[in-house]
Amino acid sequence: MPRIILPNFRTDYSERVREWSGFVKGTKSGSDTSARFLWHAEEGDVIVIPDGIDPGFKRYVGGIAAFAPESVHVLTIDRPLDEGTLQDDGFAADLRAFVKEPVEWSLFPCVVTRGAAELAARLGFDALPGSDFARQSGIDMLNMKSTFRRLAAGIGTPIADGVVARGAGEIQRAVMSLSKQTRMMIAKQDRSGGGHGNIGLADSPSALLPGTRETRLFGADLEKLAERLWSDLSDAYNQLVVVEAYHSADHRFYLEFHVGDDGVKFLNSGMLRYALPPDAIGGSPKWVGLDLPLRLGSRSSTEVTIRAHEFLDLVRRIGYRGYINIDGLLLSDGRLVFHEINARWGGSLVYHIVAERLLGRNYADSHVVSSVLNIRPGPLSGLLEDIGRAGIEYRADKREGVVVLSCDSDLGPGAECLILAASEERVRKLEADLYECTEQAVPEPPAPRAAPEEVIAMGI
Amino acid sequence: MPRIILPNFRTDYSERVREWSGFVKGTKSGSDTSARFLWHAEEGDVIVIPDGIDPGFKRYVGGIAAFAPESVHVLTIDRPLDEGTLQDDGFAADLRAFVKEPVEWSLFPCVVTRGAAELAARLGFDALPGSDFARQSGIDMLNMKSTFRRLAAGIGTPIADGVVARGAGEIQRAVMSLSKQTRMMIAKQDRSGGGHGNIGLADSPSALLPGTRETRLFGADLEKLAERLWSDLSDAYNQLVVVEAYHSADHRFYLEFHVGDDGVKFLNSGMLRYALPPDAIGGSPKWVGLDLPLRLGSRSSTEVTIRAHEFLDLVRRIGYRGYINIDGLLLSDGRLVFHEINARWGGSLVYHIVAERLLGRNYADSHVVSSVLNIRPGPLSGLLEDIGRAGIEYRADKREGVVVLSCDSDLGPGAECLILAASEERVRKLEADLYECTEQAVPEPPAPRAAPEEVIAMGI
Repeated sequence: MPRIILPNFRTDYSERVREWSGFVKGTKSGSDTSARFLWHAEEGDVIVIPDGIDPGFKRYVGGIAAFAPESVHVLTIDRPLDEGTLQDDGFAADLRAFVKEPVEWSLFPCVVTRGAAELAARLGFDALPGSDFARQSGIDMLNMKSTFRRLAAGIGTPIADGVVARGAGEIQRAVMSLSKQTRMMIAKQDRSGGGHGNIGLADSPSALLPGTRETRLFGADLEKLAERLWSDLSDAYNQLVVVEAYHSADHRFYLEFHVGDDGVKFLNSGMLRYALPPDAIGGSPKWVGLDLPLRLGSRSSTEVTIRAHEFLDLVRRIGYRGYINIDGLLLSDGRLVFHEINARWGGSLVYHIVAERLLGRNYADSHVVSSVLNIRPGPLSGLLEDIGRAGIEYRADKREGVVVLSCDSDLGPGAECLILAASEERVRKLEADLYECTEQAVPEPPAPRAAPEEVIAMGI
Repeated sequence: MPRIILPNFRTDYSERVREWSGFVKGTKSGSDTSARFLWHAEEGDVIVIPDGIDPGFKRYVGGIAAFAPESVHVLTIDRPLDEGTLQDDGFAADLRAFVKEPVEWSLFPCVVTRGAAELAARLGFDALPGSDFARQSGIDMLNMKSTFRRLAAGIGTPIADGVVARGAGEIQRAVMSLSKQTRMMIAKQDRSGGGHGNIGLADSPSALLPGTRETRLFGADLEKLAERLWSDLSDAYNQLVVVEAYHSADHRFYLEFHVGDDGVKFLNSGMLRYALPPDAIGGSPKWVGLDLPLRLGSRSSTEVTIRAHEFLDLVRRIGYRGYINIDGLLLSDGRLVFHEINARWGGSLVYHIVAERLLGRNYADSHVVSSVLNIRPGPLSGLLEDIGRAGIEYRADKREGVVVLSCDSDLGPGAECLILAASEERVRKLEADLYECTEQAVPEPPAPRAAPEEVIAMGI
């Protein structure tokens, strides 16, 4: 059954965050961030691309993922895939041109918004699973950081100490209370993503808080700090700010599931890699890629899996249907803290799809899959030449190598590549080769914290 | 709070299985199988031992598990801890002699039977969690193989192809139907354990079916085979026989949980090790130990964990409270099959307790724990001398070594030891040293099957 692949990526971010980040079209202007989603395509599919895509990309992906390039249609539109576009007559007409028998087709959106549910109905497709929930803007509710803390507290999912604040006064009281037990906090805009709405709070300018867009000092004038946080993080769509203890930890993990009528299906899991990019503002490490699968000890993996599944089964009961991921970290003292859910395609979904297509359904039992986000941008041909010269392109006979996901993505930013190999050691070797063949230095891992154990022990 | 530790082990087996196996007192006459449960004891506890225990054992365990030997009371009774004993006036009086303030005490039974629930009430203790369910003989229902298949089928837990048969006719039809797709089957007595009630069925005398007490050929006279199976496996307490496809697999796993009012808590997981003991009847490999934790790939571990937790949450809703374990295997083609649950202390619980006491709560993130069941029986002093001479006794400073759980257990049978070390490699080295210092050959792993992949691919 052919699908319309609809990467309505980041359309769940607030407009203000999209402006701040320069992601007016959902991705950065001039980038080909959405090109990665072409890896989802199978014969007969249509994919809508709101930004750019290298002209040779379809042939490249088809050659590895085994589809005839002419059998997949790329519809490039020069506008964001936001609710306005999804409800637009002209856009629906453009899509309808591809659809002969609507009953055979389905819509495959990144975020199951009301617009996506209505578009599917309008095109004559079967109702998107979870449409009723989506029509009530249920996803908005789920993706809020405040909802996560409320639900997690209700069913006992471990979360960081903190509160959901309803104004500057409550932020101030929360910071005051948390400062007695931790030296680092985080204030989160209610509706955001990718760390763009997160502001770190620390008592020292040398503190590093990965996952935040900036760090502010909390000192004498708490009232002013709280007022500025409220003013920067609240707007018409964000009437709550989460304030919680910030935990430094070397083990940041995620799990991705699909929520269906018949249960919550596990898809993939992994670890977030952080490093200091050369242009890091304020010295904060940024995420530079994901490593699949989860790399925790047996007990911690089991606990993480059970807790995540338990939470997402609640989300299923609430009525959500579709892709969802949950993030968290393992503290040095062995405690778990879950951070947030994202009710949409996870950043890892495309890696999972590539790995399943190339290595089979159980790839995570035998292989490590690692994304690299900071490769020097350039045309696809140049990138493939570099990789080919180094002899590290993906080869089916070796079940190992590098594939290209985007040539100039805003995720890193940089060209986005995926490395597949049978061991962590091999992956890191191929990563070094990849940086070398593109004439780049490997990004520095975060500098060791002055006294990480002490900082962590003070949390909660 | 002091506890009465009540290893009413195997009292959920039918009397007939206990007679067959020679486990009249729950364990083999003359053995010290229950001695292992002394590892559960903490200061002030009373442990009831229905078989024997080496006179030096309490001092040995106390020395490693850090309790003063005189602070733990061992009550040896020369009778099985069955329902009759638990309801006996004299037995209750014997226990009451240890109890000053009943409100401070609790009962810690292996199986939460009606007798255990009533004994707790009679001694004036707080009601055992799940007492109401136990009074309705709820555990009997849960531990039946037929209940497992019925519940699993109902919620979609993966199980082997097969049926719950209500008579010889249904067994015959099931064998006929399954024989079209598999060359090995298993017939299971409804209420049994440890493989004592399992009979293997194969089309070749060379087939090896670990986990069964014997193998029968299914050939021309299916009617006679079915009648004999029904006659051997049914009785007043067993009015159902499970017949299912038997899967050969190298990966046999279990997970153990505690079911409480507030949820299902993960305790430990691991792999079953099989080998051919020198006296193996019919050449069937027997289990020779457990390795903790689970040793499967990331995807399979995650799937196993989610499925097990999901099933046990159903068991929680049904009303069971207490320890429970679930067994299954990973087939060579990546499919999972769950086998059974046991609503009682798992064989692994004592290993988990020892590891937690010696290595801490997160031991499974950093250590491998492996039991060895077939060490030549002998007095504790001799066994400790052998182990000491080899320099492999457990040492807290190295967080590594061997501890003794029983000197002459019926589990292997043999002396039961536990090896703790930071890696699988170290554990296997210590295991080899243990066999060497007790002057034994290492048991042979099962002979490679003629064409294991083929046999497995034919299943289901």
